[in-house]
Amino acid sequence: MALIGILGGMGPLATVDFMQQVIALTNSAGASRDQQHLELLVAHLPHIPDRSEALLGSGESPLPALLRGIDMLNRNEVELIVIPCNSAHHWYDAMRTHSRAPIIHIAEASVAALPPEASRVAVLATGGTFQSGLYQRMLAARGFESIDPDDATQRRIDACIREVKAGRIDASTEHLAAALDWLLSHGAQAIVWGCTELPLAAREMDLPAIPIVDSTLELARATVSYGLARGWNSPR
Amino acid sequence: MALIGILGGMGPLATVDFMQQVIALTNSAGASRDQQHLELLVAHLPHIPDRSEALLGSGESPLPALLRGIDMLNRNEVELIVIPCNSAHHWYDAMRTHSRAPIIHIAEASVAALPPEASRVAVLATGGTFQSGLYQRMLAARGFESIDPDDATQRRIDACIREVKAGRIDASTEHLAAALDWLLSHGAQAIVWGCTELPLAAREMDLPAIPIVDSTLELARATVSYGLARGWNSPR
Repeated sequence: MALIGILGGMGPLATVDFMQQVIALTNSAGASRDQQHLELLVAHLPHIPDRSEALLGSGESPLPALLRGIDMLNRNEVELIVIPCNSAHHWYDAMRTHSRAPIIHIAEASVAALPPEASRVAVLATGGTFQSGLYQRMLAARGFESIDPDDATQRRIDACIREVKAGRIDASTEHLAAALDWLLSHGAQAIVWGCTELPLAAREMDLPAIPIVDSTLELARATVSYGLARGWNSPR
Repeated sequence: MALIGILGGMGPLATVDFMQQVIALTNSAGASRDQQHLELLVAHLPHIPDRSEALLGSGESPLPALLRGIDMLNRNEVELIVIPCNSAHHWYDAMRTHSRAPIIHIAEASVAALPPEASRVAVLATGGTFQSGLYQRMLAARGFESIDPDDATQRRIDACIREVKAGRIDASTEHLAAALDWLLSHGAQAIVWGCTELPLAAREMDLPAIPIVDSTLELARATVSYGLARGWNSPR
């Protein structure tokens, strides 16, 4: 039994969305019975301190709790770890050093999915992820220009994320629409949902006809590819 | 940290549906931030042998694999276990005896949710669960009459479940509609989705205006009530 560990609950609905994508991709790859799916151990730990608040200097560090989650998964002998929360990847190096199992990097998977011809990219993420520069550095390293939100637009993005976390998807979409309007009018040619709550709002909206990268979906694709390549979908 | 253990992957989409119900009920109870949700450890183990086939005598027993899952959850010190698969509850007594943590019984939670005035009840479940008599005994003990499917109707129910497990919800609904027609024309006054794949098909259909009990939802209600009553939604 090869287990894939998911460090989740950040937030709860985003973890469920990630699992659903993993299952749908496995079905698309031919699974028609339970026994043809990947085995997962999901540490769904929503009490981990807020990542964005910590990055903005207004909350305690989530790192000790993140490492406890990584420890729990490793104790259960997972062979891979994935974390469907972009902001948590600010602490990627510390988690990776701490973990026996490898950890797929959500932002690397997402930036790798951008079409090269879209040179100006807007990443929508938490205020903390934006401040941390996580995506801006990766975009620059691959030759993309980052279209950064102004303060009012970032507040809209954070409000959207907050509404999704509260289970109010209906209330989340107007904030995302306003943020998208601003970013498109400032030259964005492609967008990245760089927070795993955002695809849940986006799914309820009409979206612009430009390339859109969903970090939850890209992490799920990377996870399923990794597992299927190793035959983890078959009982041993 | 009080963890609730979920023994899942039976099937994969049903486990995701269960988690989503737990999250939605916790949001409805007032959670607006990640940190106000319940912490879960999900052993998502779809390689556990098919429960229905074993009950029908055509497959290996899932009990050893079920007990390994129960062991994994107990090793991680979960304080409650839930299993969003009705057929697996044929082995409830063995799992309960084996487990340190208590296990909520999905069929007990579901039968308890039936309105007493609906005296004739149809439980739609796998062929194995039907053969096992799990629900029929519980209904009789509470004074309900069980409306049992004929062979052709049971084949429709099993076909519906199979399509959901294959990720083909669209193809699942016609089977469920046919089964419902037969059961209603044979006197059912209330129905129970006694297999956790069925609510996923039912959500895409027009349903008859009679009481319907969703075993996934009733298990989620029991789980959230148990956890919130003990304050498990607050970080300690």
